[in-house]
Amino acid sequence: MKTLLEAIRPTTFIESQKLRDFLGLELTIAAETFQHTGSFKFRAAYNLALNVENAEILTASSGNFGQALAYACFLLKKKCVVVMPETSAKVKIEAVKSYGATVDLVNTKIVGRSARVAQLAAEMPSAYVASPYDDLLVIDGNSTIGDELAARDFEVVISPIGGGGLISGISKGLCRNNSQAILVGAEPLLGNDAARSLKAGKIVANESEPPTIADGARTLSLGVQNWEIIKEGVSEIIEVTDEKIAEAVRIYFGLANLKAEPTGALALGAILENKKRFEGKKVCAIVSGGNVDAEVYRQILAG
Amino acid sequence: MKTLLEAIRPTTFIESQKLRDFLGLELTIAAETFQHTGSFKFRAAYNLALNVENAEILTASSGNFGQALAYACFLLKKKCVVVMPETSAKVKIEAVKSYGATVDLVNTKIVGRSARVAQLAAEMPSAYVASPYDDLLVIDGNSTIGDELAARDFEVVISPIGGGGLISGISKGLCRNNSQAILVGAEPLLGNDAARSLKAGKIVANESEPPTIADGARTLSLGVQNWEIIKEGVSEIIEVTDEKIAEAVRIYFGLANLKAEPTGALALGAILENKKRFEGKKVCAIVSGGNVDAEVYRQILAG
Repeated sequence: MKTLLEAIRPTTFIESQKLRDFLGLELTIAAETFQHTGSFKFRAAYNLALNVENAEILTASSGNFGQALAYACFLLKKKCVVVMPETSAKVKIEAVKSYGATVDLVNTKIVGRSARVAQLAAEMPSAYVASPYDDLLVIDGNSTIGDELAARDFEVVISPIGGGGLISGISKGLCRNNSQAILVGAEPLLGNDAARSLKAGKIVANESEPPTIADGARTLSLGVQNWEIIKEGVSEIIEVTDEKIAEAVRIYFGLANLKAEPTGALALGAILENKKRFEGKKVCAIVSGGNVDAEVYRQILAG
Repeated sequence: MKTLLEAIRPTTFIESQKLRDFLGLELTIAAETFQHTGSFKFRAAYNLALNVENAEILTASSGNFGQALAYACFLLKKKCVVVMPETSAKVKIEAVKSYGATVDLVNTKIVGRSARVAQLAAEMPSAYVASPYDDLLVIDGNSTIGDELAARDFEVVISPIGGGGLISGISKGLCRNNSQAILVGAEPLLGNDAARSLKAGKIVANESEPPTIADGARTLSLGVQNWEIIKEGVSEIIEVTDEKIAEAVRIYFGLANLKAEPTGALALGAILENKKRFEGKKVCAIVSGGNVDAEVYRQILAG
């Protein structure tokens, strides 16, 4: 059984001169697109599956956390059930199944995802119910990226923010290594609850699932445990339009040979929103994942 | 001034479980898509520009070698002239210029590229005329990948083959490290001169530039110095249809989050041509580069 650090793949640092020249910034990319299952979520999922005593783990996820937890449970020989909306892309359902997990398809018009998780949790009393972000084991798993970042002398680290699992983990990792880097969040303007929360000094929620292209950030609000870290460790949250997110995906493609999913392109999108903000700084942009359907990607590339 | 090993970026090894499950093979990708200028060619170009005494370097290239040489010369403060056909994609011309090189556009209907290089060489008597593959400095630069591969226990290494610069370098690197890996070439069926050469035991040339989608392998024949190494070090050359090359690009996208250019997908294409050939072996597929126009890539993704 591998430890967390043995199981994860270190992040892939990429320095593209073309991209640097284009931006006029000393930018380094930290890509989690080649992490196992294609996103940073594997760090969280493996840490969780490794450290809970339960032999069964239950979660609701239509995206990267489901795949990551399914694979982590496969490696650790645990049972995994992932609740997904019936309307999920087939390729995502198949990905979760391919790692040996059970997919529970739910008609979200009849029963909500959380309600279905509660039903299943009652049926599986020995199962651990895993939040994709609001869990200390998730945050600790993601904090390993913070350790990797702290080993380089970045002045600014920009991270996507949805439920807050990634950025709170990075904050924790940077902090315990006494990093002086400023941590900035990059959030879709269409779902800017975290930016509003930081201004209000308390968790503010979106009224409904934000219709942003960045599907990994379609969360209603930050997690409670994430917020406790974010309110101390994140200095600023930049709101990014869907247009800039798409432009960032195209720039990664054209100037860095990097396939990023829209959520993964948020940090570069934040730079595009205000390049001057970062001039003269050693900046690291986190690319959280690369899992995007071919047809969606084709549409984005078409511009 | 950086040494070659200081200047290059180590190759990016990627192990995708999804890809392994799909192929039923223990495959590792060695991606040069994040090498400086987006392809392995930078290894060759930097080694050449570093080691020739000339302050000016002249080459003909419409592709990755031109960009790589331009950037290497920029870093080493040498003058660089790249002869390109007038019909080259604007993005490629701009890329070479962006690194500070002079682009000499030639109307290939009036004067051939080689003829134009000869004209310019006469005008620039102190310039070094660089072949993208048939040069010992090129081969030695590329041999650094062989060193990196030899440090892992691959049983089979599959490399794209065009002029032979990459595979001859890999062969040299594997050899000097006493690697036991079998080296296999992957060549477009539409321009199968290398496969025919290996069978004939002498260099056989294509009659005209092969119309394959793998634009990095549209060479007329192997280089003389490359052939001397290939005939001893390469055990087999697999001919890959353009359909399998395109399929390999799509598979890298879908199962490994990797943006590969068509030439870069040749090794996986060779596996697709005959999966059984590699069963039970630890296989490494070299992805030589990732520089592909968005529109071409979109068309390939559409399938």
